[in-house]
Amino acid sequence: MQLLRTRDADFETKFAKIVRDRRESDAQVGRDVATILNEVRERGDSALVEYTKRFDQHNLTGEDDWSISKEACKAAYDRLDDALREALETAASRIRAYHEGQLPQDRDYTDEIGMRLGARWSAVEAAGLYVPGGRAAYPSSLLMNAIPAKVAGVERLVVTTPTPGGEANDLVLAAAHVAGVDEIYRVGGAQAVAALAFGTERIARVDVVVGPGNAWVAEAKRQLYGVVGIDMVAGPSEILVIADKNNKPEWIAADLLSQAEHDPTSQSILITDDRGFASQVMDQIDLEFLKLPTAKTAKASWDDHGLVVLVDSLDEAPALSDRLAAEHVEIATDDPEAIFAKLRHAGSVFLGRMTPEAVGDYIAGPNHVLPTGRRARFASGLSVLDFMKRTSFIGATDGALKAIGPAAVRLAEAEGLPAHALSISRRLS
Amino acid sequence: MQLLRTRDADFETKFAKIVRDRRESDAQVGRDVATILNEVRERGDSALVEYTKRFDQHNLTGEDDWSISKEACKAAYDRLDDALREALETAASRIRAYHEGQLPQDRDYTDEIGMRLGARWSAVEAAGLYVPGGRAAYPSSLLMNAIPAKVAGVERLVVTTPTPGGEANDLVLAAAHVAGVDEIYRVGGAQAVAALAFGTERIARVDVVVGPGNAWVAEAKRQLYGVVGIDMVAGPSEILVIADKNNKPEWIAADLLSQAEHDPTSQSILITDDRGFASQVMDQIDLEFLKLPTAKTAKASWDDHGLVVLVDSLDEAPALSDRLAAEHVEIATDDPEAIFAKLRHAGSVFLGRMTPEAVGDYIAGPNHVLPTGRRARFASGLSVLDFMKRTSFIGATDGALKAIGPAAVRLAEAEGLPAHALSISRRLS
Repeated sequence: MQLLRTRDADFETKFAKIVRDRRESDAQVGRDVATILNEVRERGDSALVEYTKRFDQHNLTGEDDWSISKEACKAAYDRLDDALREALETAASRIRAYHEGQLPQDRDYTDEIGMRLGARWSAVEAAGLYVPGGRAAYPSSLLMNAIPAKVAGVERLVVTTPTPGGEANDLVLAAAHVAGVDEIYRVGGAQAVAALAFGTERIARVDVVVGPGNAWVAEAKRQLYGVVGIDMVAGPSEILVIADKNNKPEWIAADLLSQAEHDPTSQSILITDDRGFASQVMDQIDLEFLKLPTAKTAKASWDDHGLVVLVDSLDEAPALSDRLAAEHVEIATDDPEAIFAKLRHAGSVFLGRMTPEAVGDYIAGPNHVLPTGRRARFASGLSVLDFMKRTSFIGATDGALKAIGPAAVRLAEAEGLPAHALSISRRLS
Repeated sequence: MQLLRTRDADFETKFAKIVRDRRESDAQVGRDVATILNEVRERGDSALVEYTKRFDQHNLTGEDDWSISKEACKAAYDRLDDALREALETAASRIRAYHEGQLPQDRDYTDEIGMRLGARWSAVEAAGLYVPGGRAAYPSSLLMNAIPAKVAGVERLVVTTPTPGGEANDLVLAAAHVAGVDEIYRVGGAQAVAALAFGTERIARVDVVVGPGNAWVAEAKRQLYGVVGIDMVAGPSEILVIADKNNKPEWIAADLLSQAEHDPTSQSILITDDRGFASQVMDQIDLEFLKLPTAKTAKASWDDHGLVVLVDSLDEAPALSDRLAAEHVEIATDDPEAIFAKLRHAGSVFLGRMTPEAVGDYIAGPNHVLPTGRRARFASGLSVLDFMKRTSFIGATDGALKAIGPAAVRLAEAEGLPAHALSISRRLS
């Protein structure tokens, strides 16, 4: 954990280093993934069988070894205890409601010269959703990725997930039932992403691949960007809490730890204007490590990447926060709006003392798939738009073409493209 | 050129091969680009000096060797003949008007449990636009890329362009003046994209890189995706014309050639239900080759990639067109709407006999940067959204947190994330 003070002489040097620090992908991972993608493209299902045996100790032989049926998902859903089933349904319906508000408007109008112009949105036909196996198999993540696809109007939503030794996660299957997933294949890693992008004998290709995963999955998506649409290049995630001294230290400590417990590479950052409050939070975090079941991961994250920035005034916070462009920004003050108004780069913002980031992870409604690694400078959270595309259209009348055609002919000729010019001028004569 | 007939027995095999056919990037290009990116990241300006000397025979020494001033752009604009200057202004103002209609709406509402939810859009701070040198330096392309950035609200718009032997294209400089470009650097190739993404001593980094380029530029953008936002992976472009026999063959021939003259890898496709009309168009194209100044490129494209599909009825056209998911689709019939209503995958659609694709390239208003290589299945044309990002926000009251917090706690516990649960439960007690 580093403690920096903006008034210290070496602050800028140290802070700039943190902003620049970007954990890079491994070149060896890149080469391994390229091989896997190529094998799946060339050999289809037989490559999947081999990789799944090697990496997941699972034999893809009969239908049930390859896929998990809708009936199995329904059964998993029915097995849940009532409270958990209800929590899943509440989350799903709130996520659905928020994302329905993202559906874009088509445009269709005729301008002053009589030219009809517009744009029409439509969903992609099929989307693939990668769901990690093991510890990181989160039902909330399935809901956050699957529901926007369904709201967008995607007809075929395919999940791939590794089932090491054949074991699937009941809660994830239940979430798949709630979200309306259409197909589930027991395949993981880069080979699953390749199967979704290229298609195999058994798995028809999709148009967009989303979902979290390890370094191999992330690299596979990166390499296949353009063959399919992808959600985003995801890196280690982060939380940045802007807090004055009028917060309970144990609340803010829990907020910081909720990011740290995800992964040793996660980053938790506190910006505060009160040295005493900062100490209380740091002490509280040390206390939590004694009892938190996820202390090992959380402590590794906090020790290596934790950061406390002491400012003279919280007025300094927006500019510092923008440079870090964090995935999650909490503003725990009486007037969070004042700071929010000055923020520009953040994945999602949590306003006020009663809005812990975790409420957004599960149930508030907005998506929890958000840009990491300073990418909030240019990227947005997952939305229905990631599962849709826009077709522009133009319809000219004789009059409209007469009005602007000659200018287009002039530009085409100036660019040395005579057939372009001809295609217009022939219609004008 | 291939002529296929849907009623022939081998149609499906041959058509499927064309749909599958995707010209791949070269592995050697990938390695060369990786080296260049690394050199620019490590050595900044000095790497740019070396590459620019080697590839463009241009010495980056004084200020004027490095950059082109706004005054120089203004001077180039003033030198244009009146008709061309007016054409450029007409194009710019129509493009601007269309893209202003794309500006997204923010959301901010309070739901039934008192939870404030919303999303706020903002522009990226800086965008980089690659402009090719030589033959492909199109002023229309500069307008189509730069204007959406400025409409989005980007403060700093940087152009990089190679100036082989120091020569810049006057028309491009004039377009830069019209579009309000802020900085222009005389650097090209993968090294220019690297400079935009990483920043060097002289060129401050940007957040998004757009613009067309050769294979090295395209590969550099692909490799830097995630470090910066990029517009799209662009491949060879294509036009698909759906036409009945009531068209003038010389109009449709010009339309097909307007795509073919761009590049030998371009693809022009005609779908028609009339064998005689198809022959007339093909004959006309052969005639054009005798006089068209760009015949060499156009003929190479048409010979290698040209396609005529004969259908029994134009009712077959939408499904075939969707499988090709072409960048440009012209519908040259009396009732283009009937076919358009059944289309789903296309970059841009041109409705009716009086709407040649070229009118969209220059002046209609919608963007001419469109998804190629079947990517219209999942991708859209360039828009102001490519230069903006969305920050979601959540504001809970005590009551709202009480209403849904317990469900979130349950999900967090089920996922094995106790600090997530604590961050909520502590606020509820």
